[in-house]
Amino acid sequence: MPVITVKLAKGRTVEQKQQFVEVVTNEAVKKLNVKEEWVTVIFDEYERENWASSGELHSLKFGEGFGMKGIEK
Amino acid sequence: MPVITVKLAKGRTVEQKQQFVEVVTNEAVKKLNVKEEWVTVIFDEYERENWASSGELHSLKFGEGFGMKGIEK
Amino acid sequence: MPVITVKLAKGRTVEQKQQFVEVVTNEAVKKLNVKEEWVTVIFDEYERENWASSGELHSLKFGEGFGMKGIEK
Amino acid sequence: MPVITVKLAKGRTVEQKQQFVEVVTNEAVKKLNVKEEWVTVIFDEYERENWASSGELHSLKFGEGFGMKGIEK
Amino acid sequence: MPVITVKLAKGRTVEQKQQFVEVVTNEAVKKLNVKEEWVTVIFDEYERENWASSGELHSLKFGEGFGMKGIEK
Amino acid sequence: MPVITVKLAKGRTVEQKQQFVEVVTNEAVKKLNVKEEWVTVIFDEYERENWASSGELHSLKFGEGFGMKGIEK
Repeated sequence: MPVITVKLAKGRTVEQKQQFVEVVTNEAVKKLNVKEEWVTVIFDEYERENWASSGELHSLKFGEGFGMKGIEK
Repeated sequence: MPVITVKLAKGRTVEQKQQFVEVVTNEAVKKLNVKEEWVTVIFDEYERENWASSGELHSLKFGEGFGMKGIEK
Repeated sequence: MPVITVKLAKGRTVEQKQQFVEVVTNEAVKKLNVKEEWVTVIFDEYERENWASSGELHSLKFGEGFGMKGIEK
Repeated sequence: MPVITVKLAKGRTVEQKQQFVEVVTNEAVKKLNVKEEWVTVIFDEYERENWASSGELHSLKFGEGFGMKGIEK
Repeated sequence: MPVITVKLAKGRTVEQKQQFVEVVTNEAVKKLNVKEEWVTVIFDEYERENWASSGELHSLKFGEGFGMKGIEK
Repeated sequence: MPVITVKLAKGRTVEQKQQFVEVVTNEAVKKLNVKEEWVTVIFDEYERENWASSGELHSLKFGEGFGMKGIEK
């Protein structure tokens, strides 16, 4: 405890994920009153073809990619 | 809200998934009283080797594929 | 297959959930090419205190309730 | 995107959860290159009777409670 | 690793859950080549009103209860 | 019911997974009082780059692989 699952589009680098893990783990220790070794963080990565919002698959809405890519059109 | 996750075998086309997303999103709006832009639909796709029922992996029970394929044997 | 999980705020009636289940199950049969008896639908219900978007818990942002309640303020 | 699910024992206050949500959301924006309004954080809370590690339910191992409570025995 | 989540109807006793956890943890150690202290087992318990198969909520199909109760009708 | 999800590192063989499924399904039947045909077991497999504990991605902590590989350093 806790097990933290992050569902997001595929594409982040190992560095991005490691930096995010460090901050989230530290915050869990400080704010949720747990030991560092208890904290598990899991990334579930998705193709945009497998994620939809407002009734549309993101691959159709934004094209390939992740994060801000294609969003700004 | 809501976040709807669909766990199923790998193999459906983008068209199949898009059609399913449209109907599920519309129903959520009508029946569950939410706004379209609140609805997220996520597909978790599996190889048959990673899904078992009645104590047997589906790859052993039905062979490769998805949906009705191999089921009718 | 498939297993469909619907995560949403607590408060819908049995009737609302049953109507939603019927349509989602039928669509899975028609669009995703599966048998009705294969389809499982699971509702995970949440207090607004346990759901946050844009960095704020919904109980703080919208007060108690679900769906459109408190959203229109 | 992203949807972040935090599975932990029941017992944290609204303030603890709100503080954790703020930091995790900010980090997602900075480190994972997403917009604040895209970030959903969901808390799944558990009785110790429904969480086991090393083959033992935590209610049997640590008694009732959460976090450090009972762990130090 | 591994994190094993068991989604089932509400109603099992602590003893039933503890016995199940012991066997599943031992099997993970033996068959999946992991250490006992790495294994987490989590129970997600549901009212029958929040679980549907073949297009019908189990509370409507089988009444209240869990496991074999109401199934034999 | 029940739906059992096993989240673990990628790499086990079909045989390892099948053996684990058989025991877990039998135990669910015996200990949780359900029918064999009700039991679904799903494997979610992860690269070590997508799993972190104690604030560090397992690919950085243990290198590539799964189970005991790299752990003994």
